[in-house]
Amino acid sequence: MANKPSIPKGTRDFLPEQSLRREYIFDTARMAFQLYGYQPIETPAMENLDTLMGKYGEEGDRLIFKVLDSADKPNRTIQKEISPSNISPVYEEYISSIGADIAQRVGTLLQSQDENPSKQVVDNLRIQIEESKPDHIKDDLGVEIHKILLEYLFDSRPTEKANELDESLIQSYAGKPDALKMVTAYLGFSMQSTGLRRLFATAITAFSDRIGMLLSEKALRYDLTVPFARFVVQHQNDLSFPFKRYQIQPVWRADRPQRGRYREFYQCDVDVIGSDSLLNEAELICIISDVFNKLGLGDISIRLNNRKILSGIAESAGLSGYFQEMTVAIDKLDKIGVDGVKEEMLKRGLPEQGVKKVLDHLKRKGDPDTVLRMLQGAMTGVEEALRGIDEMKKVLKALPAEVKSKVEIDLTLARGLNYYTGAIIEVGHPEFPSSICGGGRYDDLTGIFGLSNMSGVGVSFGADRIYDLMEAKGLFPDSLKAASEVLFVNFGSEEAEACLRLAAELRANDFSAEVYPDEAKMKKQMKYADAKGFAYTVMMGSEELKNEQVQVKEMKSGDQFTVMQKDLCNFLIEKTRA
Amino acid sequence: MANKPSIPKGTRDFLPEQSLRREYIFDTARMAFQLYGYQPIETPAMENLDTLMGKYGEEGDRLIFKVLDSADKPNRTIQKEISPSNISPVYEEYISSIGADIAQRVGTLLQSQDENPSKQVVDNLRIQIEESKPDHIKDDLGVEIHKILLEYLFDSRPTEKANELDESLIQSYAGKPDALKMVTAYLGFSMQSTGLRRLFATAITAFSDRIGMLLSEKALRYDLTVPFARFVVQHQNDLSFPFKRYQIQPVWRADRPQRGRYREFYQCDVDVIGSDSLLNEAELICIISDVFNKLGLGDISIRLNNRKILSGIAESAGLSGYFQEMTVAIDKLDKIGVDGVKEEMLKRGLPEQGVKKVLDHLKRKGDPDTVLRMLQGAMTGVEEALRGIDEMKKVLKALPAEVKSKVEIDLTLARGLNYYTGAIIEVGHPEFPSSICGGGRYDDLTGIFGLSNMSGVGVSFGADRIYDLMEAKGLFPDSLKAASEVLFVNFGSEEAEACLRLAAELRANDFSAEVYPDEAKMKKQMKYADAKGFAYTVMMGSEELKNEQVQVKEMKSGDQFTVMQKDLCNFLIEKTRA
Repeated sequence: MANKPSIPKGTRDFLPEQSLRREYIFDTARMAFQLYGYQPIETPAMENLDTLMGKYGEEGDRLIFKVLDSADKPNRTIQKEISPSNISPVYEEYISSIGADIAQRVGTLLQSQDENPSKQVVDNLRIQIEESKPDHIKDDLGVEIHKILLEYLFDSRPTEKANELDESLIQSYAGKPDALKMVTAYLGFSMQSTGLRRLFATAITAFSDRIGMLLSEKALRYDLTVPFARFVVQHQNDLSFPFKRYQIQPVWRADRPQRGRYREFYQCDVDVIGSDSLLNEAELICIISDVFNKLGLGDISIRLNNRKILSGIAESAGLSGYFQEMTVAIDKLDKIGVDGVKEEMLKRGLPEQGVKKVLDHLKRKGDPDTVLRMLQGAMTGVEEALRGIDEMKKVLKALPAEVKSKVEIDLTLARGLNYYTGAIIEVGHPEFPSSICGGGRYDDLTGIFGLSNMSGVGVSFGADRIYDLMEAKGLFPDSLKAASEVLFVNFGSEEAEACLRLAAELRANDFSAEVYPDEAKMKKQMKYADAKGFAYTVMMGSEELKNEQVQVKEMKSGDQFTVMQKDLCNFLIEKTRA
Repeated sequence: MANKPSIPKGTRDFLPEQSLRREYIFDTARMAFQLYGYQPIETPAMENLDTLMGKYGEEGDRLIFKVLDSADKPNRTIQKEISPSNISPVYEEYISSIGADIAQRVGTLLQSQDENPSKQVVDNLRIQIEESKPDHIKDDLGVEIHKILLEYLFDSRPTEKANELDESLIQSYAGKPDALKMVTAYLGFSMQSTGLRRLFATAITAFSDRIGMLLSEKALRYDLTVPFARFVVQHQNDLSFPFKRYQIQPVWRADRPQRGRYREFYQCDVDVIGSDSLLNEAELICIISDVFNKLGLGDISIRLNNRKILSGIAESAGLSGYFQEMTVAIDKLDKIGVDGVKEEMLKRGLPEQGVKKVLDHLKRKGDPDTVLRMLQGAMTGVEEALRGIDEMKKVLKALPAEVKSKVEIDLTLARGLNYYTGAIIEVGHPEFPSSICGGGRYDDLTGIFGLSNMSGVGVSFGADRIYDLMEAKGLFPDSLKAASEVLFVNFGSEEAEACLRLAAELRANDFSAEVYPDEAKMKKQMKYADAKGFAYTVMMGSEELKNEQVQVKEMKSGDQFTVMQKDLCNFLIEKTRA
């Protein structure tokens, strides 16, 4: 490999100091979670594609990293049966006949159209072909093949059976790339009409999609919430509810990499599921406060909203039918401002009068109790909004004064994800442009996996953003830098062996200690000591070896001490732990 | 989703107790590594495909999980230029003319052959087409397109330019699946000759390969060693050598899942690179001893060998030319026995006399010093073997007696990976069938990434196997079970709020404490307490609320105490930390 090695864009290596600092954030969060009775779980990096697809909106689906099933080929009966190299004449004939029939009809269609046929034309064609099903095959496999061919041709998403057929073709003809290129050329370039060439290109596109689907049944998790919902349903009989879990694992998104946005990053999620008590919301807000206090970020602000209030506002402004569009627009407020949100709402067809009303409501800010009181007045008779206001009051009431002082109500908080149904929480810091923690209440996230009536609430800490913020503010403890405390300089094999014994004694007393492995030049060894930031270096030359002594140098002060070997451990204990 | 949700085969979820136990193993290892001055690093789950391919042998390559680059489309000039929807007439004509030319020639070829054309026939065709390059296009882009088309048609591996062309086609025609199916049907089934149909299937195959390559430039890491080598080369200027690192992260292998073999599992690697001192080998053996002692697995055996000794044995038996075959066979000794190894060697063409000699040498076992003395006699004059013996002696000499007592020499230890050049280490336990830790010395692992003279040595702890062994032996501390210490039973909102304040006080004193979130039936709350294993439950009904008291129940003994609220914290401190 001639080039300098690199890693995929949007991913990162972490050097020791960074790793220790990241670990410090995780440990701090972990400790707080555990004090509140949350327990860790882990889920695999890869989930079944089915588990993830369709859960994050169209844009989200596109950003899911799919994993190829390279070593995963199934080996089923039908595949062997219809493999062209092993095909029995009766099916050969069958496939040919239906193939010819279809080819004829489709050919006619293609000749009559230069552009893509409409859905209706395609549907009609399907019905015609279904009705003209050849009847010279009567056994089950024949029927099966007929079905597969039709599904393969017409269904917008290939069924499992169609996949099997594809796999059989692919496997049977693997390893003959030269022949391929001939055919590709022949098929692709002999089509002189632009329309036909376009259709051929479309075929390539759809092949790539279909082969992607075919080869990929797995994907890297996109967040920790959907895997958690899947986990809860799958292991419901092994869990006691309310189930309080935390999970600290990486997630992957095929987003365009940019400053502060990565393709692999850690999420740090804490959720309680199986209880709709609002004490859970309050507890999570306390955890947020605790974690950031411990990290030295006590000056956060915790912004609260409630989906029910948003829904009530929409209702009172006559926009009930536009709730989804409204929240999507509001969600962009940070980026495009009030005027931008207004424009976007109008563009999406929301009535202007309603938009104005909504924006007026969203302006309310300030002391939570005051905002809620005013809002309550404005929402008289709007049941949904009143329920949301009541929920928010209960959450606030359960908070200690110190925590409540950090909370503000922000009615512009919408959060794009549709599964939120109650509280919405987001944490900001005055010195950071985006939120560093966020979440909310979801009433039916497990419903998609077949388990209803499981309300949950959770928040996710953005470890990478918290890291950036802490680094900018210099909040990481110095102690994280010094991985090692004592370096024994290597003066030769005999001395080194004596050092090994002393180092072992130090380690038994919880000092981290190294013996420099090579009898290198003093300058090189001291350079190593400086680079790694040892607190002490210990020198034992032949003279010291004979006298059972060592020279100890305190790196910070430069002070040097002659110490008996048997006293070294106690000397260091006194020096460092007095 | 109607089906019960599941996860990909060979992957696992971890419930809280399992997660805590896994964390315990990792923490124990981490602590030991740090005491010896090793520092953590992290690398991304995805590496560039180039970084991984070709590093693990043919079988290994096959087991690498590839990731699709779905959202990774480049957007370059040429793409826009030749996009069919935006194509300028001059290139349209150009592409058509060369396409027609190629189609004609390829068509002639296909008619004359029912099977795949030979490489020579294809090569000739290419030359013909290159020579007949149409000359009505004279600008640079035209030349470029001509080159791309030829590469696209004939090169066994598509060049970057050809990829761009493909991508342009794919992007331009995305989202028209109906049209595709028509064309697929037409192209596929109108080919009546079996030969043509086969070629078409081949085209599908090769498309899938090409699209796979096209869409995948990344893969999930297969181990931590190759990413570590890549890391060292990439960050060489930011590291001080010898660089001592540990890394605890998951790896992925598309292996056939079976008992004890997973597709996602953690490795726990510790390596020192940039020093060829044998003290490093000794240090790693001490770390192995420490880690397993701390885990309660002091009864391990640490098996040692040295590639140089194996190489010398091969030389002395006249098998120098068969070293690779020999080690591969020896590596299977555990599975197929001595007779099996012998058979395999003979089958691989090794001379029988040499095979006998080798197997005689491998029989030597027992006390390390004795084995080495005998071996030294047998290897007189075999320089490579004597170097290996000398290395092994030095390693043994640097070990404390307690650690040395666990070491045995096992000349049958070969380890399949070719990058090992010196010491080979494997750790076994009498109650476990496979090794639970292993590694060795590699002299030039970073060479593949362009950095030579970087000898390193490292071992990898098999966290999953260690987990299984510890579970079987009941070695996990009970304290890992009790995630939470105190549960406040919920008797209603007013009482619960008082409990919240008490719980906060307990947490401030490092007790983990929960308030049951719902005012549920007593039976349900106590069931929760039992399931989660709380040490204490605290009850505060209206009476206690009024009297500023609580009832504390010690779950293990069943004893109950009436305690003033203000004294609760001290009461629990006395109870638990006395």
